[in-house]
Amino acid sequence: MSRPDPKNVKRVACIGTGTIGGGFVAQFLCSGYDVAAYDPGKDARDFLERLLDQAWPVLEKVGLKPGASRSRLHFTQDIEEAVAGAEFVQESVPEDLELKVRMYEKLDELVPPQIVIGSSTAGFPMTDIQKRCKFPERTVVTHPVNPPYLIPLIEVVGGEKTDPAVLDWTVEFYEAVGKRVLRMEKEIYGFMINRLQVALFREALHMIAADRATVAQIDDCLTHGLGLRWACMGPFATFHLGAGDSGLRSLLDSYGTVDWCAPYVTESPLPDLTPELLDRILQQAQEVIDGRTISKMVDERNATIIGLLKLREASRVAASQKQ
Amino acid sequence: MSRPDPKNVKRVACIGTGTIGGGFVAQFLCSGYDVAAYDPGKDARDFLERLLDQAWPVLEKVGLKPGASRSRLHFTQDIEEAVAGAEFVQESVPEDLELKVRMYEKLDELVPPQIVIGSSTAGFPMTDIQKRCKFPERTVVTHPVNPPYLIPLIEVVGGEKTDPAVLDWTVEFYEAVGKRVLRMEKEIYGFMINRLQVALFREALHMIAADRATVAQIDDCLTHGLGLRWACMGPFATFHLGAGDSGLRSLLDSYGTVDWCAPYVTESPLPDLTPELLDRILQQAQEVIDGRTISKMVDERNATIIGLLKLREASRVAASQKQ
Repeated sequence: MSRPDPKNVKRVACIGTGTIGGGFVAQFLCSGYDVAAYDPGKDARDFLERLLDQAWPVLEKVGLKPGASRSRLHFTQDIEEAVAGAEFVQESVPEDLELKVRMYEKLDELVPPQIVIGSSTAGFPMTDIQKRCKFPERTVVTHPVNPPYLIPLIEVVGGEKTDPAVLDWTVEFYEAVGKRVLRMEKEIYGFMINRLQVALFREALHMIAADRATVAQIDDCLTHGLGLRWACMGPFATFHLGAGDSGLRSLLDSYGTVDWCAPYVTESPLPDLTPELLDRILQQAQEVIDGRTISKMVDERNATIIGLLKLREASRVAASQKQ
Repeated sequence: MSRPDPKNVKRVACIGTGTIGGGFVAQFLCSGYDVAAYDPGKDARDFLERLLDQAWPVLEKVGLKPGASRSRLHFTQDIEEAVAGAEFVQESVPEDLELKVRMYEKLDELVPPQIVIGSSTAGFPMTDIQKRCKFPERTVVTHPVNPPYLIPLIEVVGGEKTDPAVLDWTVEFYEAVGKRVLRMEKEIYGFMINRLQVALFREALHMIAADRATVAQIDDCLTHGLGLRWACMGPFATFHLGAGDSGLRSLLDSYGTVDWCAPYVTESPLPDLTPELLDRILQQAQEVIDGRTISKMVDERNATIIGLLKLREASRVAASQKQ
C-alpha cells in the first residue's frame, strides 16, 4: 500500500463546502489542484460559488500557482463521484460528533485505504471520530483558521489509531499546498488554536455577563490593541519585549505571581449563556458590525490579512538588513 | 479650580521612563508636547535615549505632529522639577502597589489639585492606588499597550474616588494626543486588556506545563493564525464571519454549549510556575527569539504595526467603496 507523493498530489476532494469547507476549496484551487467538492445541502452549490466569487479576486492578487483555475472545480452531490480518484480528502461537515463518525464510516468504505482523510473539526479528537473506521490509521485532524485560503496556519494532529507516518505525509502535503503547518504530537480537545481562542473568548463572555464590558469594547481591545501585537508576535515574544533589556526571564520573575491568578482573571466556569445574555451580545455586536454586510466585512478582512502577510515579511527582511 | 483645556495641553510630565514610561515619552514628543521626564534609576537617562533612538525614525515615518521635536524633552532626576508646570502627569513606576501608593502620596503634594495624574498600572485598581491621596478625584488609570507610541489603544478607568469629570477630561486629552481611548465605567483587576491577554496566556502556560505544546507552537498559533484575524477584527466579529450567511447568532446557538466549556479549556488554577517550568519556557522561547536581539525584534514589530495600521484603514476604505 503506497500513498501518493505528498508533494505531487493533483486531485483532492472536499467533503462539505460551507464557510470552512468552501474555504478549503478556494485554497486548493488557487494552489493549482483539481478539486472535487461534495455537499448535500440544497443551496450548497450557490453558497460555494458566492464564496469563490468573493475569494478569487483576492487570491489572484496574491498570485495563483501555475495552472490554478476555477474551472478545475467539479461540484457534485454524489459523494462517490467526489472521492473517486482523490489523492487527499478534506472533510468539513458540520461540527456534530455523530455526524462526523458516520461520515468517516462512509469515507472509510469509499476511499482506498492508502488515501489520507483530514478533518476540519474545530475540537473533537480524531480518536473519537475514527472509532468506527476499518482503516483509522489514515485519518488525521487538519484544522484550519478561517478563512482557510488566507490564514497560513493549519493544525495537524492524529488520534490514537493514526499512523505517525500519516502525520508526516500530511505535514508534507500541506506544506506543498502552501500552509504553515502546526504539528501537534498530543491530542487534546479543541487543539491548540481553540484552546487559546476560547480561553480569551470565555473571559470576554464573563466580562459581558457581569456587565463590565461591551462587545464593542472587547473587539476594540483586540483590534486597536492586543491583536496588533499578536499579528507580529505571540504572547511570549511580546512579553520578551515588555521588560526593558532583560527580556522574558525578568518578566516571568516579576509578574509571575501577581498578574496571572484571580482576581486578574475569572477562575470559574463559563457564565450561563442565558437567552438574555445571548440577546445582549447580539445587540451589542451591532456596534461592531456597524451596518456592514458580512460580505463587506469579509472583503475588508481579506484585504487586511493579505497586506499584513506581505508587510510582515518585509519588516523581518528590513530589520535583518539594518543590523 | 479649573483644569487646563484637555485639547490644548502643552506640557506633560512622565514619571518613570522604563519600557512603558519611555514609550509614553516618545508618544508625547511625536504628538508635539513639551515633556519633562523623571526617573531616579542610574541608567535611566541612557535607557530612555536608546528607546527614543529606536522609536524616533519610525515615528518620523508615520509623521510627526507640527512642532514635534526630541529637543522638547527635558530629562531630570528631580521630581519637583519634572512636575513643575505640567498640565498632565503620566506615572509609570514599576508594578508594585506600595511603590505606586507612595508615589501618589508624593505627587498628591507636588502637583496642583486641578492637574490630572494618570497611571500606567497594568492591573492595580485606582481605588487601591489613590487611597492615601488628599486629592484622589484627579487620579485615573491610563493603561497603554506596549509600545505606547505605536499601539493606539489606551484604557481609561477611574477608582472609587475619581471624579467622573476627570474621566471625561482624560478621554478628551488622550484623543487629542491621538490615542484610541477605551473608556471603562467599571473598575476591575487587570482591566480589560490584561483580563483578555492573561486568559489566553494562562491557557498557554497550562499547555506548556502539561507538555502538550511548546512556546514556539503557541507563538506560531498567534502569529500565523489567531493574531492575523484579531488584527482585523475582535472575537465577536470573527465569529460573525465564521457561520456562513447566518452570522453570530447561528454561531452562538450552535457552538455555545459545545466549545466553551471544559474539556475545551482548562478550568482550573494556574499551573505551578516552578523553576523547572520557567526554565523550560525560557529555553523553548529561544526558538521564537531565533537569535534576534530585543532591539532587532522591536524594529521588526514596529515596522509591522505601522504598516498594519495604514493597511487596515485602506482596506476599510476599499471595502466601503466596492459596495
